Amino acid sequence: MTGGMGCAVVTAGPGTTNTTTGIANAFRAESPMLLIGGQAALSQHKMGGLQDLAHVDMMRPITKFATSVPSTERIADFVAMAAREAFNGSFGPSYLEIPRDVLDFKVDLAKAVIPKPGAYRASTKSIGDPAGIEALADLIVHAKKPAILLGQQVWTCRGSEIAREFVEKLNIPTYMNGAGRGTLGPDHPLNFQLTRRDAFGEADLTIIVGTPFDFRLGYGKSVRSKTVVQIDMSYATVGKNRDISLGLVGDVGAILAAVQQATTGRGDNGAAARKEWVASLRAKEDAAVAARMPKLLNDANPIHPYRLAYEIDQFLGDDSIFVGDGGDVVTFAGNVVRPKGPGLWMDPGPLGTLGVGTGFAMAAKLANPNKEVVALFGDGSFAMTGFDMQTAIRFKLPYIAIIGNNSYMNQIRYGQIQKYGPERGNVGNYLGDINFEKFADMLDIHGEAVRDPKEIGPALRRARASGTCAIVNVWLDPNAYAPGTENQTMYK
Amino acid sequence: MTGGMGCAVVTAGPGTTNTTTGIANAFRAESPMLLIGGQAALSQHKMGGLQDLAHVDMMRPITKFATSVPSTERIADFVAMAAREAFNGSFGPSYLEIPRDVLDFKVDLAKAVIPKPGAYRASTKSIGDPAGIEALADLIVHAKKPAILLGQQVWTCRGSEIAREFVEKLNIPTYMNGAGRGTLGPDHPLNFQLTRRDAFGEADLTIIVGTPFDFRLGYGKSVRSKTVVQIDMSYATVGKNRDISLGLVGDVGAILAAVQQATTGRGDNGAAARKEWVASLRAKEDAAVAARMPKLLNDANPIHPYRLAYEIDQFLGDDSIFVGDGGDVVTFAGNVVRPKGPGLWMDPGPLGTLGVGTGFAMAAKLANPNKEVVALFGDGSFAMTGFDMQTAIRFKLPYIAIIGNNSYMNQIRYGQIQKYGPERGNVGNYLGDINFEKFADMLDIHGEAVRDPKEIGPALRRARASGTCAIVNVWLDPNAYAPGTENQTMYK
Amino acid sequence: MTGGMGCAVVTAGPGTTNTTTGIANAFRAESPMLLIGGQAALSQHKMGGLQDLAHVDMMRPITKFATSVPSTERIADFVAMAAREAFNGSFGPSYLEIPRDVLDFKVDLAKAVIPKPGAYRASTKSIGDPAGIEALADLIVHAKKPAILLGQQVWTCRGSEIAREFVEKLNIPTYMNGAGRGTLGPDHPLNFQLTRRDAFGEADLTIIVGTPFDFRLGYGKSVRSKTVVQIDMSYATVGKNRDISLGLVGDVGAILAAVQQATTGRGDNGAAARKEWVASLRAKEDAAVAARMPKLLNDANPIHPYRLAYEIDQFLGDDSIFVGDGGDVVTFAGNVVRPKGPGLWMDPGPLGTLGVGTGFAMAAKLANPNKEVVALFGDGSFAMTGFDMQTAIRFKLPYIAIIGNNSYMNQIRYGQIQKYGPERGNVGNYLGDINFEKFADMLDIHGEAVRDPKEIGPALRRARASGTCAIVNVWLDPNAYAPGTENQTMYK
Amino acid sequence: MTGGMGCAVVTAGPGTTNTTTGIANAFRAESPMLLIGGQAALSQHKMGGLQDLAHVDMMRPITKFATSVPSTERIADFVAMAAREAFNGSFGPSYLEIPRDVLDFKVDLAKAVIPKPGAYRASTKSIGDPAGIEALADLIVHAKKPAILLGQQVWTCRGSEIAREFVEKLNIPTYMNGAGRGTLGPDHPLNFQLTRRDAFGEADLTIIVGTPFDFRLGYGKSVRSKTVVQIDMSYATVGKNRDISLGLVGDVGAILAAVQQATTGRGDNGAAARKEWVASLRAKEDAAVAARMPKLLNDANPIHPYRLAYEIDQFLGDDSIFVGDGGDVVTFAGNVVRPKGPGLWMDPGPLGTLGVGTGFAMAAKLANPNKEVVALFGDGSFAMTGFDMQTAIRFKLPYIAIIGNNSYMNQIRYGQIQKYGPERGNVGNYLGDINFEKFADMLDIHGEAVRDPKEIGPALRRARASGTCAIVNVWLDPNAYAPGTENQTMYK
Repeated sequence: MTGGMGCAVVTAGPGTTNTTTGIANAFRAESPMLLIGGQAALSQHKMGGLQDLAHVDMMRPITKFATSVPSTERIADFVAMAAREAFNGSFGPSYLEIPRDVLDFKVDLAKAVIPKPGAYRASTKSIGDPAGIEALADLIVHAKKPAILLGQQVWTCRGSEIAREFVEKLNIPTYMNGAGRGTLGPDHPLNFQLTRRDAFGEADLTIIVGTPFDFRLGYGKSVRSKTVVQIDMSYATVGKNRDISLGLVGDVGAILAAVQQATTGRGDNGAAARKEWVASLRAKEDAAVAARMPKLLNDANPIHPYRLAYEIDQFLGDDSIFVGDGGDVVTFAGNVVRPKGPGLWMDPGPLGTLGVGTGFAMAAKLANPNKEVVALFGDGSFAMTGFDMQTAIRFKLPYIAIIGNNSYMNQIRYGQIQKYGPERGNVGNYLGDINFEKFADMLDIHGEAVRDPKEIGPALRRARASGTCAIVNVWLDPNAYAPGTENQTMYK
Repeated sequence: MTGGMGCAVVTAGPGTTNTTTGIANAFRAESPMLLIGGQAALSQHKMGGLQDLAHVDMMRPITKFATSVPSTERIADFVAMAAREAFNGSFGPSYLEIPRDVLDFKVDLAKAVIPKPGAYRASTKSIGDPAGIEALADLIVHAKKPAILLGQQVWTCRGSEIAREFVEKLNIPTYMNGAGRGTLGPDHPLNFQLTRRDAFGEADLTIIVGTPFDFRLGYGKSVRSKTVVQIDMSYATVGKNRDISLGLVGDVGAILAAVQQATTGRGDNGAAARKEWVASLRAKEDAAVAARMPKLLNDANPIHPYRLAYEIDQFLGDDSIFVGDGGDVVTFAGNVVRPKGPGLWMDPGPLGTLGVGTGFAMAAKLANPNKEVVALFGDGSFAMTGFDMQTAIRFKLPYIAIIGNNSYMNQIRYGQIQKYGPERGNVGNYLGDINFEKFADMLDIHGEAVRDPKEIGPALRRARASGTCAIVNVWLDPNAYAPGTENQTMYK
Repeated sequence: MTGGMGCAVVTAGPGTTNTTTGIANAFRAESPMLLIGGQAALSQHKMGGLQDLAHVDMMRPITKFATSVPSTERIADFVAMAAREAFNGSFGPSYLEIPRDVLDFKVDLAKAVIPKPGAYRASTKSIGDPAGIEALADLIVHAKKPAILLGQQVWTCRGSEIAREFVEKLNIPTYMNGAGRGTLGPDHPLNFQLTRRDAFGEADLTIIVGTPFDFRLGYGKSVRSKTVVQIDMSYATVGKNRDISLGLVGDVGAILAAVQQATTGRGDNGAAARKEWVASLRAKEDAAVAARMPKLLNDANPIHPYRLAYEIDQFLGDDSIFVGDGGDVVTFAGNVVRPKGPGLWMDPGPLGTLGVGTGFAMAAKLANPNKEVVALFGDGSFAMTGFDMQTAIRFKLPYIAIIGNNSYMNQIRYGQIQKYGPERGNVGNYLGDINFEKFADMLDIHGEAVRDPKEIGPALRRARASGTCAIVNVWLDPNAYAPGTENQTMYK
Repeated sequence: MTGGMGCAVVTAGPGTTNTTTGIANAFRAESPMLLIGGQAALSQHKMGGLQDLAHVDMMRPITKFATSVPSTERIADFVAMAAREAFNGSFGPSYLEIPRDVLDFKVDLAKAVIPKPGAYRASTKSIGDPAGIEALADLIVHAKKPAILLGQQVWTCRGSEIAREFVEKLNIPTYMNGAGRGTLGPDHPLNFQLTRRDAFGEADLTIIVGTPFDFRLGYGKSVRSKTVVQIDMSYATVGKNRDISLGLVGDVGAILAAVQQATTGRGDNGAAARKEWVASLRAKEDAAVAARMPKLLNDANPIHPYRLAYEIDQFLGDDSIFVGDGGDVVTFAGNVVRPKGPGLWMDPGPLGTLGVGTGFAMAAKLANPNKEVVALFGDGSFAMTGFDMQTAIRFKLPYIAIIGNNSYMNQIRYGQIQKYGPERGNVGNYLGDINFEKFADMLDIHGEAVRDPKEIGPALRRARASGTCAIVNVWLDPNAYAPGTENQTMYK
């Protein structure tokens, strides 16, 4: 949210293990952060201290760097080391364990190693091999049917504006995912969403920016162009899972800027063909949007999740930050809700973590006090971390919590019913029918329940008007499943 | 709770990381259990699957055994392997990761390795070296001022009855901690609590059974007898942190039974002296109990935590299982609440984990459907896992949740005020004033708030009478700290 | 060799990595030892010190315990901890890393934690669950066709004499492997070797003592008795890989002694039947020995490996310690050479490590200055560590090194020829024709080459007579392969 | 030696552990390589297979990537993955474990994942942030007293020619270390060696290229310029251990080329001052060389190590590759022997591994069949791996092995004498007086001993003339210690 390194400080033992889900999420989502955790005194190492655990060994698999700090003098030195590692290649979390005595001991400031800001690490704004810049510039100006996917790293590198200028100058149909969403606004003529399958199949050049060939791209099989270019912050990610025609490693914004500059004066053979290509894709996209619209406007009762997603999309303001935390309900939203600009979309990323919403919402508000924060939860997700809403209230970080409440863990339930039959699938995933608006009562904030689709919009506006944290508990049809859930290969 | 191996099955990624606190707690509390977790398909290993993480590496530091299952044929074989390791020495958790395709693949039953019950592992009822049994028998019959500490492993080994017979036959003043509490009932003439410091200082023989020389025993320094005998399930624990006169390794119940048998026919030189010793300790204990009683009966308003602890002690029935989940509030209770029999006390053990109460209470009720379960939470603890109370309701596992609500994380707050001054100590630990009885409203169960000390008892009885899960939110004086909190060396 | 804990001290970096093969061998061979290694100064942790490596992480997978020592005061405490772990269950190596400054720093002796001998760990002489002792006693006195396998732990536990008395009293046909060899002398009436397959197939009770169901026992499939009893030092090993009828965990000598005692007064129903069983097996064994004799007496030139093995068997004195270090050549010897008593056989164990011979021979001589040490090497093995013979000379630890020199790595060569054809199989495994007797010249010790089978015996006697380290380089037929090599499943 | 990825294939267990020293050396020396090792069959995972070990866990701390290959189809995919990781940032080793059955199983080629050359990874020729290039260009043209250190990565990146042109164009006094030696020839006017301390103290700009601020640079304290620029392949290394004025990350050759280009047209304010600066440093360097010359010409008997180093320096041809493998003896050589061009110097790097020489010499010859290879060993080093010389002979990879034979491990001995007195220091480090020329006899190659300093040159020439592998055993004064050895802080 800030572009800088987040920092959390926790106690030893359960204080640290309670963070593993968040750290693992940051690891796979490539969020730069530093976790500092406690430990029993170094002088009592391996003696069975209170909350003594081998934290460093636990953290190593989910961080880019994890170590224990052996002396008070070097605490700042280790913080600098942890930061270097957090920003090395694709970003991620670092972990420092500081034993109690190392933390409490006092040392002469003159003996402490204290790196100066700006002097302890290099710039991350690498463009990689200049030859790759030239090669991509050449490919683009000759491309007749290019397509581009802008992934999370576009936002991580704060390259959103550069990316927009890039696709505008070269007129490239643009798809976005994860935190890359919003790079182009909902009405931007190059913003495409529903035609990705077609585009990545017919394109003569597909450029994948800042997102790996992981399960979200069929491990690379979803991209069927003859020429595939990958741009990523991590050397190890480029060429992983499928062959590429060209790979560029570095800051994805810096690279796009350099490529754009390199196209200048190179002619643009493909310009006319690209214009046609954009128009033909736009026609398909418009058709797909129109075909889906009745689902979004569905006014059935109980409320269909598509309708909730549609109402949220309509509700979001130009500056609203949308947080998605859930399974099936959020999958619907992922297809429908469109952030209005860059940096306005937060989802857990490839770890698919439930329960991130409460923390994400607080972080979003803390970093952007003038923006509205709207978080969509499933009922299962909300219950995981919802009690922390009291923290948001205490620190005056209001957000609107919309709970898409279908009383089940539907994303799991669907597959378990397929595999094990309805009885086991239902029993194991039922969560009860919780009146979350009464949770709002407990916290003395605005809350209400919605059962009528027409009431969603008004309820959201009342929540907005309350000025505090607010809970809108929207009861949904428990028997609606997102298409993504029905198509999951894991149940086949 | 059952004496057997607990088992949990969770999904990959956050499903697994969400268990790390529980697993770590089981690891340090020596609870035998098996965690089975998912993983992306083995065929897509290291390709960036949904919720793919290096779970095994993360789990290894907090389990006795962690591995991935490489084939469907051997799932049962690996379960047996995990069980052997869980019961090897002191008990603990094992972890098996089963990739999605390994889990789903179907194999010919004839090719699967399926160990038979009883045929895949040895008895755990070891008595160790018989020479040690003889040596201890000899020490005891000559001891004039013996003392014994019965720790958690007495219950783990289901040796409570044996231990009671042992101390009765030899007439040994008995202290208990952790799950060893309740081995002797509150009124048993050998049950001592407040005089441990004196006893372990003056004793000519101290026997430590089933609890390590960890921070709870001053790393062994709290035991100042000339002759110190240690009995433990783990070879590696015996002699750790301090020298011992004699160490016995094995099932602590089997060992106590064998030692008792070995004392027969050996004379009992020390019997008369022991009688005097018990009487003199009893006098001291009685005096200490009497001196403390005014604190327990304190009828100040806001309610003092000692009073809450006292009321709970009075409230517990002969079969009530007491669960303690919290910091300062539970430290008070640890000094005052006395379980009426073995297996009726649950606390997190040496990891000191907040948030265990909800799960512990459900497990206790599930394993003991005819016993009442009473859980004392701090307000901080309850908020960590309280939402899972819905699970207890859904599966009809009622328990009484008492929330000792002082609006702060007091155990941390105390030290932080000492170190950093009141402002930072207060702000960082304030949790708000939460009306948890309204959480009960949300769940449609019995709930009430208590502000008058005289109302604690009646409120608890109303909760008992409700027959459902119930919440009793007891507002406490936020400026009372447990003696243990004030004495923590970590703040000095 | 001593029964106690071996100790090695090495420098950091390559000093430590050079030990990994030896430590890994000790790990799988269950040898108790402590490795102490250096490290860059703790004050320069992670700064890139000379020979800085993450030794502890490397050592953890091949030790029972590995850690770094954080302070000078606690060095002795950590040594005690490492010893407890080395002797916990089945024995093995422990590792302590001591950073340079921790090693060099001087501290007040009064502040150092120094456990007293005998006070820091418990006895290892556990008999496990007494009920198991009774159960096995009962099985044995009713057994009509029992068989027993005495593995390495019989020697580890120094239970050789007990085991001999046990099988003699109960009249049980006895097979031995690894360091269990020699428990019964070559001419003992219960010593069987070539009929194991028959015996373990027909027996009504097979007792496996101190050796796991690993690849050497077909993962347990080689034992086809209806009743299978396993006795092992490690809880985790009992019941592993196959179901058992009864498992006993503890010191295998203490257990055998207890079982023998428990058979007393229990009658012996099976005695008569066992007498017949022994006689019938003896007839088969005699026939097998006779059938094989011509191979052993083979006087072909180049020398056949069986002949070399036979000559060594004849050459060994009653106190000679035999060390086997090699592949194919040592496999031949394993079938033929019979140590004359317990503790006179050293092989690498299940890691099958080449190059152990030089170190083993020195250790054997150091621990047994009055015994002769005879080491059989392959030419490949000898070259791995042979230069260290200079250490033996310098420290006056003479041994006779017999090199069975076939110029190839034959155990690998055989399979590679099968899989990849003779050209690749030969080129990759050829080692040249090395005149190792000239290596003796370099070291100024006795050395000679042997090409005539009749000269093996005289050459060995000349080596013995030299009184120094000596090398006997015996040229062997490179086209003879041990039966075990030809049958390896890995080449099928 | 090739600039590409080296590859070694070994068997499981000891086959793999025997490589740990080499892999660890490659890890700290940043050599790109792939180790493929065996493992017991995946179908027998954790069953106790022959030579089964947790190799991956052992290798992880000393590789950039270590994993097991789960299926035959993906072997090539994992090789590509391992290569990506080996070339990610600073180079290093990767490790793949391939279980026996995965290796042997046959699969349909169509189902196997086989990345195409050039399509599985990106270029490594990154220039990093172009702003850094500009900034450094600016610093340089204004620098009056610059100095540069060319480290190993200059050779790793094959940037030697670029680096030479760079320093020549900008007229910068140049120091070299590790594999950076030879970037400038011995007589190049910008090649400085003995005045580094002065230069790095007085310089207004010091540029450190491709070598970390590790123990060899006093953890950065050796560089006392006000302006310090660091160029490195690894982001994590830049700014480590000390603050820097500017850091550049990428291919060090590509960066130097880009900086040189960027200086063009920027003026060169500092040119005149630099000319003076070079002249003044040259005067100091000449004086230092002259002052040291008598030591190099020392004709004492026994031979002084300086004299041997001097003779080797004189002996080396323009294409001779020099390999240094030893402690004290090689420290002398490190100060005196000057390779005549880039890629002609091999030492173990920061792990300081003894025994690398035999393998290095073979690799050097294999990669450069037309160049002469001259390896200097200590007697201790030679004995570690000397037997593998038979491999060099068999594969016709001749090299001249010079053994600087002082009968001791002198680098350790010096400090141990200081700390523990002469008796213990001598006994523990004495290696005997080995006539290594007889080792040559055994291998049937040229060998001779030298005791007269005047005979070193002729003996080396005879070795060269022999055309085969050759051993020159030079007896040295055991009581001479290198200055570096006497100054080691670890003995103070």
